[in-house]
Amino acid sequence: MKVSQLLGERYKDRVADIESQNLMTRGGYMKQVGNGIYSLLPPATRIQRKIERILREEMDLIDGQEVLFPVAMPAALWQSSGRWDSIGSELLRFKDRSGADMCLGMTHEEAAVHMANNIAGTYQKYPFMIYQIQTKFRDEPRARGGLIRVREFTMKDAYSFHTSQADLERYYDRCYRAYERIYARAGIPEVIAVKSDSGMMGGKVSHEFMLLTDIGEDTLVICPECGYRANMEAAECIVRNEADAVQKPLETVYTGEAKTIEDVCTLLGSKAEKSCKAVVYQRNADDSFVLIFTRGDIEVNETKLTNYLKAAVHPAVDIENANLCAGNIGPVGLATKATVLFDRSLVGATNLICGANKEAYHLTGFNPARDLPADTVYVDLGKAQAGGECPSCHKHSIQIRRGIEVGNIFQLGRRYTEAMGMTYDDENGNRVNPMASVCEEKHDQYGPIWPITIAPWEVEICALRADNAEVKAEASQLYDALDRAGAEVLLDDRAVSAGFMFSDADLFGCPVRVIVSPKTLGRGVVELATRDKSVKEDVALADAPARVLALIQELKDQVWAKVPESI
Amino acid sequence: MKVSQLLGERYKDRVADIESQNLMTRGGYMKQVGNGIYSLLPPATRIQRKIERILREEMDLIDGQEVLFPVAMPAALWQSSGRWDSIGSELLRFKDRSGADMCLGMTHEEAAVHMANNIAGTYQKYPFMIYQIQTKFRDEPRARGGLIRVREFTMKDAYSFHTSQADLERYYDRCYRAYERIYARAGIPEVIAVKSDSGMMGGKVSHEFMLLTDIGEDTLVICPECGYRANMEAAECIVRNEADAVQKPLETVYTGEAKTIEDVCTLLGSKAEKSCKAVVYQRNADDSFVLIFTRGDIEVNETKLTNYLKAAVHPAVDIENANLCAGNIGPVGLATKATVLFDRSLVGATNLICGANKEAYHLTGFNPARDLPADTVYVDLGKAQAGGECPSCHKHSIQIRRGIEVGNIFQLGRRYTEAMGMTYDDENGNRVNPMASVCEEKHDQYGPIWPITIAPWEVEICALRADNAEVKAEASQLYDALDRAGAEVLLDDRAVSAGFMFSDADLFGCPVRVIVSPKTLGRGVVELATRDKSVKEDVALADAPARVLALIQELKDQVWAKVPESI
Repeated sequence: MKVSQLLGERYKDRVADIESQNLMTRGGYMKQVGNGIYSLLPPATRIQRKIERILREEMDLIDGQEVLFPVAMPAALWQSSGRWDSIGSELLRFKDRSGADMCLGMTHEEAAVHMANNIAGTYQKYPFMIYQIQTKFRDEPRARGGLIRVREFTMKDAYSFHTSQADLERYYDRCYRAYERIYARAGIPEVIAVKSDSGMMGGKVSHEFMLLTDIGEDTLVICPECGYRANMEAAECIVRNEADAVQKPLETVYTGEAKTIEDVCTLLGSKAEKSCKAVVYQRNADDSFVLIFTRGDIEVNETKLTNYLKAAVHPAVDIENANLCAGNIGPVGLATKATVLFDRSLVGATNLICGANKEAYHLTGFNPARDLPADTVYVDLGKAQAGGECPSCHKHSIQIRRGIEVGNIFQLGRRYTEAMGMTYDDENGNRVNPMASVCEEKHDQYGPIWPITIAPWEVEICALRADNAEVKAEASQLYDALDRAGAEVLLDDRAVSAGFMFSDADLFGCPVRVIVSPKTLGRGVVELATRDKSVKEDVALADAPARVLALIQELKDQVWAKVPESI
Repeated sequence: MKVSQLLGERYKDRVADIESQNLMTRGGYMKQVGNGIYSLLPPATRIQRKIERILREEMDLIDGQEVLFPVAMPAALWQSSGRWDSIGSELLRFKDRSGADMCLGMTHEEAAVHMANNIAGTYQKYPFMIYQIQTKFRDEPRARGGLIRVREFTMKDAYSFHTSQADLERYYDRCYRAYERIYARAGIPEVIAVKSDSGMMGGKVSHEFMLLTDIGEDTLVICPECGYRANMEAAECIVRNEADAVQKPLETVYTGEAKTIEDVCTLLGSKAEKSCKAVVYQRNADDSFVLIFTRGDIEVNETKLTNYLKAAVHPAVDIENANLCAGNIGPVGLATKATVLFDRSLVGATNLICGANKEAYHLTGFNPARDLPADTVYVDLGKAQAGGECPSCHKHSIQIRRGIEVGNIFQLGRRYTEAMGMTYDDENGNRVNPMASVCEEKHDQYGPIWPITIAPWEVEICALRADNAEVKAEASQLYDALDRAGAEVLLDDRAVSAGFMFSDADLFGCPVRVIVSPKTLGRGVVELATRDKSVKEDVALADAPARVLALIQELKDQVWAKVPESI
């Protein structure tokens, strides 16, 4: 491919805060068509096809059979699992010309079970796995960051079917390994797996594959001591309270205008962890109230709350209708119709400040074990905190990091097969969507540094002074030699300045670069460099093709060195 | 791949009249999810991926750059070309969660111009061609014939941009040739190109690629003498009238209840070609009437009528409101507000019967040249007829055939670039969707006969009596040898009867079959056969891998022998 023919322009000025969005827009990889909807230009399409090839090879390696499900599906299919009603407006619903209800696929569990149903009746077929690479649409309320969170995207999803839980678990491990290989082959072996919440997918065990980056939307709980890793949504929160020597009696104190737990603690000269705060939510379905008491320094984890209640919730908005004394709510002497929950962080705590259920008053000396009924249930509803105790090694080593989810695997159990009347199986599904994430992780200030396995081209030849006959001839000859040898070559044959050409080359991000110029030819050499600056050398003209090919192989070997064995 | 692991079942009983639908359903290639919406099982997905690879290679060969446009697009994009309003309900429109109008892409001219706009400003880029392989959705009123006419399908569409009409025409020829190569590589070199009407795409010159088959939805006009080929929609209709020696005077005759031209001619002892009939249409937009006079034996071609009027029409439904004397309408002494058109078939005709615009009466002796105003315009609005005159070689050699459209190329000219404010270009677009068409063309009563270049697997090994240790061992060894050599092998390793296995094998349609059984092993051989029955031979066990590989190569060579050179 010659740059002069390549569709797309590169731009100099920064266009976005998020680096992948900035670099991929400036580099001519994509063009926005609508909110969260992009067209991919040739370099991005090349990267996407390469990622697809890696996915296909890895799925085939774990005995996957490629299939294709529809993008537009009839409502009946989603009704059969109950998700037509249970999923919110991120599922884009519409009517066709005959008025029939339809939706755009955001995931294909129903379609997978529909396909496998009836035609996999005999036990000899099991286990089997089907996968597809297909367009998906999620009507995200807020698209963000270029390709980082879009509404339309290409996804690989896989569904395996098993006759026993043990077989499902065995296969789950193979999938897990296949994912590690996929990220390693795509040049991001640093992706980590974290325990996750299964969310709308259902099922019990699931892992997310996360690329750690500050712009990530997910909060991760990581223990560097023992390797414990979980999504905040799924992370256990461990809080230890040491009982005070003396348990003080309950006492009502005037706190006036102090309403937040922070203000009250400041007023009374106490620390937040010596208080008990009330947090009020409402169920989405009927706006009924849910009241959670936690230790004052612990935040409520909404995912855990949702899972415990088996109902979606939102922070209370019309608390005035709750018949609660907002700002002074407390667990003692509370009369309310709201569902009342107690977080595990209150276990063992003593001498806490809490609301008195009376305007302008709080209590001190609240001792849950003494002041609450003996049958009070304490539930883990809290968010893990930096420096908190690791649920695995129990050191106070918890770190909080941010990450982008680039894949997800689930053990769905019988969630879909039972709902849809299929006998005989379990299932798990996976997804991956990594182009922008790789860019986010692999770049410098000048552009992306694509791993060689997914780079749009393996090598770029920069013909400086393409109007010079000798440069033109030597560059073309090298181009032909590399092309014939099977390398993927981009040739910049434009009559532009060196600065302009290099800045474009940085945006293309090809791993190997060869510079041919009157100056290098004067010395009988070309200049060879890698995009990551680890190699920079002169090579004699005659040796150039062989050396470039060897360097490409070296870079590929470096990627493969980090790819774990398949299991 | 082993049949025992392959997802899908084969069925014995006929399920549909259309052969591709019947065989591909019975063969476990697809499963219907909704009206005109299918999931593709592994064999069909394999065929599809191979067709995609052929498309990609051929598009790259004519300097195409692969891109990816969105499936779901904002209305604004389609409004910019005017097609949001001009296309009917086959364009599926919907609203997203924010209430914004969107649609599912049925073609991507707007997206292509949107992509190219602004980033292809300099003349050096031209010409360039971008293409994509992507899911499309057309909300067809009647889905039909399994995969023959579906609502959701995968399409390759390409768009080229040029700075001159001459360059566009030059590139159009390259596209035309690429399409011939694609069909030849897919094993259907018998696909023919016909002149077509550009329809909703706009533009002037276009060709459709047609597979001739009785179940085709398109009517084709073909001259075997000179090779003229056109879609009926676009075919010129040539009618020669020899003037009678004597021009009779107009005479009013009583025809009573005879209303159709057939009845009137029978009553008066005349032939249809000696009459002039009236056909009434209404414009879709405002139901206004359009009246066409043609020679009595010539049918109106609605596409030509639509193009001439630049307005969509339908046969008149409320003719009683037209103030016309239905059944007795004639061109002489006609007083009407309807648009009145005269077909070219009336030129030179003499002594015709026509309506008298008076209940129960017709005229005889109608001579258009004498009885119509001198400035009457005659337009080509007629349908070509079998045995009619060829517009190219002028022999009376026209044949009428039926065909399935498997591709289409257009010279769109400035239709989209001007409407969307892009300077500097012309454009053409193409599409292909051939899996079911190939099956329609290549099959016997037992199943598809896939050309080797798109067959799901190149060779199937039937291990008869897989419970026999020797059969199992030899079949596995052959499987491994072929697999290692790069052949695509399917092994039927199930313990089923020979009849059952062969009937499945016919449905898989792999071009080469190897039978390993106790009987063949007793003779020290395996049995080798091609699906099309052109080869059937015994091969010594030791020679089997080499012979199978040679046969695969032979079959590939046969396909390639019919592939024209690229230009």
